[in-house]
Amino acid sequence: MFIAMNRFRVLPGQEQAFEEVWLGRETHLEDVPGFVSFQLLRGPRAEDHTLYSSHSIWASKAAFEGWTKSEAFRLAHRDAGQGKALYAGHPNFEGFEVLQDVRGRA
Amino acid sequence: MFIAMNRFRVLPGQEQAFEEVWLGRETHLEDVPGFVSFQLLRGPRAEDHTLYSSHSIWASKAAFEGWTKSEAFRLAHRDAGQGKALYAGHPNFEGFEVLQDVRGRA
Repeated sequence: MFIAMNRFRVLPGQEQAFEEVWLGRETHLEDVPGFVSFQLLRGPRAEDHTLYSSHSIWASKAAFEGWTKSEAFRLAHRDAGQGKALYAGHPNFEGFEVLQDVRGRA
Repeated sequence: MFIAMNRFRVLPGQEQAFEEVWLGRETHLEDVPGFVSFQLLRGPRAEDHTLYSSHSIWASKAAFEGWTKSEAFRLAHRDAGQGKALYAGHPNFEGFEVLQDVRGRA
């Protein structure tokens, strides 16, 4: 299992605009091979930004990399970059290998 | 839904020791109210550290906060701090509210 996160530092006052852009877009993810789930995350607020992160779970790193080369990826990102005024700097990508997975009994 | 992550910068050469400490411990999480799942993640390697993260998913922020005040939390962390020589600095906690959750069809 593999988790891909892209960290966005959103400028103060631009949080709602950021959320509207993300929540309003079509992800084109549901049928991508190896795609498990996607979450949009709102993290801690600092003085000069609020941290957000896109967070997606994949069956493997190879499945994630396959998606980044796909037509579905191109479609999901064709409007990226339009909202540059929302951000304090570039997004920061981090990929994580899952070493252990513990599930609750509930 | 809420995701709690604690980011650890592990010194070069200490990766295996770090993984053994984490993979060998008892999490005491399975029966905690509101606990969904826990993952130990290995992230990107930088020149002076490898990023690891503990990653847990909760039904709500309140469920996570309830756990941090519980006996299960105390048990899971009673050996924390013994492995200080593994780290480049303190861990960095980040909590995230899940704003959107998209599931794959597979």
